[in-house]
Amino acid sequence: MWAGDELADSVMCVHPGSAPIRGRAEVLRSWALIMANTTYIQFFLTDVDINVVGDVAVVTCSENILTADSPEGDLAGGRVVATNVFRRTGAGWRLWLHHGSPVAVQEETGEEES
Amino acid sequence: MWAGDELADSVMCVHPGSAPIRGRAEVLRSWALIMANTTYIQFFLTDVDINVVGDVAVVTCSENILTADSPEGDLAGGRVVATNVFRRTGAGWRLWLHHGSPVAVQEETGEEES
Repeated sequence: MWAGDELADSVMCVHPGSAPIRGRAEVLRSWALIMANTTYIQFFLTDVDINVVGDVAVVTCSENILTADSPEGDLAGGRVVATNVFRRTGAGWRLWLHHGSPVAVQEETGEEES
Repeated sequence: MWAGDELADSVMCVHPGSAPIRGRAEVLRSWALIMANTTYIQFFLTDVDINVVGDVAVVTCSENILTADSPEGDLAGGRVVATNVFRRTGAGWRLWLHHGSPVAVQEETGEEES
């Protein structure tokens, strides 16, 4: 999924609330660490928006995330907004940049701000 | 600075901790609101990384921000990591997507995690 070869060094990933991680190997390691420390996680993607410009695709979406300590445990929810930049390569589209950031949960009041 | 014309509708901006704002007019309005509520703000950009691919440029950087209630007031600092996607247009490079997210401040301990 992540870009490799001559793009490997310029791969970048920002996890929510964190500083950027640069380089394919470092980015893959960061995801492995997250998954190793996560018992259960489920993503529901919404607001997916795709723009292709030449050999670049920019995909933005909301990641509505459910996590739990165990498959039978209580679910905790969160929302992340993600910007993804893909590159068209000889091997197909590859993810080159991922930037995820937390969205503060706002109480639904049913009222619009004036 | 921001892209207009046929790109106006697809302009997107994520302010730190917030949901995406789409559309040039809405994005400009959000910045006007931020600046109207800010007495003093200064940005020091670091870690600037620029990649041009055809008519797209991806610029990532850290925004080291100082703000104050007044020009003589106490300064408060913060760090934002930003992904910017520019489009090459007939009018030159224009900002098309800005995604800023907060970086949690870590205490400098002088020790590496093992």
